[in-house]
Amino acid sequence: MATNEFSEQHRIVYYEADDTDQLTLAKLIDLFVLVSEDQNADLGITTEKIQALGVGWVVTQYHIQIDRLPRTGETVTVKTRATAFNRYFAYREYWLLDATGKQLAYGEGIWVTMSYETRKITTIPDEIMVPYHSDPVTRLPRLPRPDKDDAKATSRVKPYTVRYFDIDHNGHVNNAHYFDWMLDTLPAEFLRHHHATDVRIRFENEVKYGQQVTSAVTQPEITTTQHTVSFGTTTAVRATVQWTD
Amino acid sequence: MATNEFSEQHRIVYYEADDTDQLTLAKLIDLFVLVSEDQNADLGITTEKIQALGVGWVVTQYHIQIDRLPRTGETVTVKTRATAFNRYFAYREYWLLDATGKQLAYGEGIWVTMSYETRKITTIPDEIMVPYHSDPVTRLPRLPRPDKDDAKATSRVKPYTVRYFDIDHNGHVNNAHYFDWMLDTLPAEFLRHHHATDVRIRFENEVKYGQQVTSAVTQPEITTTQHTVSFGTTTAVRATVQWTD
Repeated sequence: MATNEFSEQHRIVYYEADDTDQLTLAKLIDLFVLVSEDQNADLGITTEKIQALGVGWVVTQYHIQIDRLPRTGETVTVKTRATAFNRYFAYREYWLLDATGKQLAYGEGIWVTMSYETRKITTIPDEIMVPYHSDPVTRLPRLPRPDKDDAKATSRVKPYTVRYFDIDHNGHVNNAHYFDWMLDTLPAEFLRHHHATDVRIRFENEVKYGQQVTSAVTQPEITTTQHTVSFGTTTAVRATVQWTD
Repeated sequence: MATNEFSEQHRIVYYEADDTDQLTLAKLIDLFVLVSEDQNADLGITTEKIQALGVGWVVTQYHIQIDRLPRTGETVTVKTRATAFNRYFAYREYWLLDATGKQLAYGEGIWVTMSYETRKITTIPDEIMVPYHSDPVTRLPRLPRPDKDDAKATSRVKPYTVRYFDIDHNGHVNNAHYFDWMLDTLPAEFLRHHHATDVRIRFENEVKYGQQVTSAVTQPEITTTQHTVSFGTTTAVRATVQWTD
């Protein structure tokens, strides 16, 4: 495996799955982040070392394509590749494979480093890219964005308050937790009988401890849901999810 | 190891920990339940087989004593023993050990089987106890109960709505999820600087999808928190947690 690739096995346990025994989308994201953190640690770039530089990795966008979400008890392989980066952005790919090596899901993410002092994007410190032995590029792949909102569509809205356990090392809501808010606006019966096949999500503004957010969903078609998480007039996250039954 | 004992190793990952990198109480409970489910599966008593009998295991009480909660990246051993049972109740013990075998936490739980038809306690079906090769006893150990509420104490209260992802196979809120509601009533700064050392919790009534609950906490002393989760006039859960700084 190339220096910029890393993989590990993981057994799906019941608390990573929903009541139909399938891995949740939130936990799929968690597994993708886990394998990238383990790759960093394997290369000697621990979270502590990154934080010591006064920055943290923050995701701005994912595109995830799903064939099948694994079930409780399955042992899967999670793989990642730190494919390309430039001064400000890093492009990562992710794979989830079943026990036979068949692809279950494929993900792409665009990451930036955020300064803890200014809470703004910084140039990516050289120290945390050097161990990957890859050269910066000028152009990164572009991920497809969520659809535009249809202002006329009827939306279902639910309020949420950020809990202590939603907060991660970066002092804001962990990116996987948005999926709990986004999907919880859909009825349990819909979630039980549909499978997400494609997720396009953009993280536009961070959300902090104790804030109140609103999770809104519209459903232009039965198999398409359009999500916005916002606080006041600020959009935190927008996403489009495609479903199949 | 005796037939009624079972243990397995587990690596603590970041999404099982809080922002201080320590395993959360909710996930400690999840690990205890996981090792008992794995023991059941190892003995051929899968969740499916139990459900086919029209019942599900439901916890009524835990007493957990904690020396130290493990940190992200630690590999721990989780051990359980199906110690004793009678017609209606099963008494289980749990241990969490660090990599050197030192005890991190010890738990005791009282479990019952609930009929899916009546949602009431049933006699424990013989089929699911036989593989343990232990004989029923007349008297089980009694777990210490949570303290009585002080009606005069000032309480902090937060409302929560049950989410789809809070629901487990038994069609009600998973017992570990109550800890998110209970502890979230305490300020982040308290949670960051205190460690739970003793938890006594009783599950009195089940909570279902879409219900609104209220999580109330009083703090008779700085190191004691008294928790009630309720809906309407019904108490779902009561707990007393002892803390150290």
